[in-house]
Amino acid sequence: MKKLINSVDGMVEDMIGGYVAAYGDIVDRLPGRSIIVRRNRKEPGKVGLVIGNGSGHEPIAMGWVGRGMLDVNALGPIFTAPPPTLILQALRAADSGAGVILLISHHSGDLMNAEMAIEMAQAEGLRVEPLVMYDDIASAPKGREAERRGAPGTMFIYKILGARAEEGAPLAELVQLGERVRNATRTLAVALSGGISPVSGERIFELPDDEIFIGMGVHGEAGMGRGKMGPASGIVSVMAEALLADLPFNAGDEVLAFVNGSGGTTLMELLISYGVLARILEQRGIRVFRPLVGEYVTTQESLGMSLSLCRCDAEMRRLWLAPAAVPFFTDRGRS
Amino acid sequence: MKKLINSVDGMVEDMIGGYVAAYGDIVDRLPGRSIIVRRNRKEPGKVGLVIGNGSGHEPIAMGWVGRGMLDVNALGPIFTAPPPTLILQALRAADSGAGVILLISHHSGDLMNAEMAIEMAQAEGLRVEPLVMYDDIASAPKGREAERRGAPGTMFIYKILGARAEEGAPLAELVQLGERVRNATRTLAVALSGGISPVSGERIFELPDDEIFIGMGVHGEAGMGRGKMGPASGIVSVMAEALLADLPFNAGDEVLAFVNGSGGTTLMELLISYGVLARILEQRGIRVFRPLVGEYVTTQESLGMSLSLCRCDAEMRRLWLAPAAVPFFTDRGRS
Repeated sequence: MKKLINSVDGMVEDMIGGYVAAYGDIVDRLPGRSIIVRRNRKEPGKVGLVIGNGSGHEPIAMGWVGRGMLDVNALGPIFTAPPPTLILQALRAADSGAGVILLISHHSGDLMNAEMAIEMAQAEGLRVEPLVMYDDIASAPKGREAERRGAPGTMFIYKILGARAEEGAPLAELVQLGERVRNATRTLAVALSGGISPVSGERIFELPDDEIFIGMGVHGEAGMGRGKMGPASGIVSVMAEALLADLPFNAGDEVLAFVNGSGGTTLMELLISYGVLARILEQRGIRVFRPLVGEYVTTQESLGMSLSLCRCDAEMRRLWLAPAAVPFFTDRGRS
Repeated sequence: MKKLINSVDGMVEDMIGGYVAAYGDIVDRLPGRSIIVRRNRKEPGKVGLVIGNGSGHEPIAMGWVGRGMLDVNALGPIFTAPPPTLILQALRAADSGAGVILLISHHSGDLMNAEMAIEMAQAEGLRVEPLVMYDDIASAPKGREAERRGAPGTMFIYKILGARAEEGAPLAELVQLGERVRNATRTLAVALSGGISPVSGERIFELPDDEIFIGMGVHGEAGMGRGKMGPASGIVSVMAEALLADLPFNAGDEVLAFVNGSGGTTLMELLISYGVLARILEQRGIRVFRPLVGEYVTTQESLGMSLSLCRCDAEMRRLWLAPAAVPFFTDRGRS
């Protein structure tokens, strides 16, 4: 395994140390804990936003801790949900009396640990609401949306909910807004090759040179199945058709669009893919509002990308452009 | 070759199309040309900043076109400098009467084409000053700095000069400022494995599994030589020692620091590497001002990274934090 680490056992700790050293003007950590917090805490009386997630997918989610996005991120080991006690500490750190939303990207380990943490927090008298996020259309059929996995389209929730929480909206409104964004979001991914697990040193999955895998989850979970490698136009068309049919997205809709790179795919390829998607949406009479292209949710040096769409209303558009001062998200309201 | 493109011949054009479709609120293109310009042009009377570069290294430099950074980027084919006539068109597009600086990352093809373009522009009566940028300490010995290659440390020049040009500084002052930043900057890179050329489909260079290459240029050019793969701490130490000795950087200095990923290296590894660098600088009594970690200058999915340091003064620090509203740079002044 050719990775710039010091040791397998220490790599998450070393990453956190390097992150706080580099971006200490924006983030800090709870002493001795794998928990990233904002350097300048949110004003008391505003709802806190917390997420726990396995490491190895950076910049999600620690890269989005800061003003206008998330308050606290609890980091688990590589590809492993953080334990309930760590999430509990994260919830405590995010509470300033107005309650906390625990964002849960739907994977079994994350959900189980989050539910245990919420029970413990509520037993202490904390007001905590869960928001389970699911957007990956490959992981369960239409009509069973709540069984689907969390995928990169959860980005829309972090950004939009983060902006509204910063404005001081109350807990119940924020939960409703989060559900509204989630219910309007759909994601589909394509994998071209697996990255190397930094724990085992092995490739996460194997694919023949001429095959792709549509609908794979961020840890290599099963999806729609294999297909033949071909031009970007064909691959993106197949993905876009499936996405558009699922919500469905229709002529006259306005959408947020997000092309996420899986780690090793070049920005050139992501931009080419977006270009194909943009033409398809235009042909369908669907307008795109301030799209986002880049690497935000990765799985090591995996080759592949995902397409996410969110049917947006005026409030979502306003919050999508609201200021966010975090290390790994460039907001679009300043241009 | 497993890349999400439509055709080898059309990929730069498709990338430009996708980029302008995605970020059209910030950037535009000259009709029919591989030239990216700002959507909202700089006010007349301010100096324009132009760069030409080969494609395949994104987000440099098109990702930094916008308010507070660059005005115009002329894109060549993959890994190939744009032709003089294209650079000439870029210079014309950036001129609003106060003159233009053509930033040239020192590589033989870029320099030759830039010089021809400047001659043509001056023959038309345009005021154009070149700023040749070189920072890679592996490519020529100390004392022969002007023979060195341009490397990711040129980022400091784009950001600082871009901010000061936006403030309306005159041409002569900007050239001096750019030279001052360049002369205070040093970069050293390490390569772990070569990416795949999107033109040939071949790996750009080969390295055994247990070897690294220190000082390689962004196209695989020769550097200091091979070494053994080992922990990040050892590799970063060797690189930092060479960097610090070159300027030299001394106790009491304040520096801008930049860890750049080559394309396929994870953010986790870049942050771990920064953590090692931060400790070394602290031990030496060198203070770091608002470091930057991420993928900014890439060579496809290459594994590796570079370290850049710039000894900074108060003006450079102020401009480093000044607002930049471009698609692929998150400024630090807003946190």
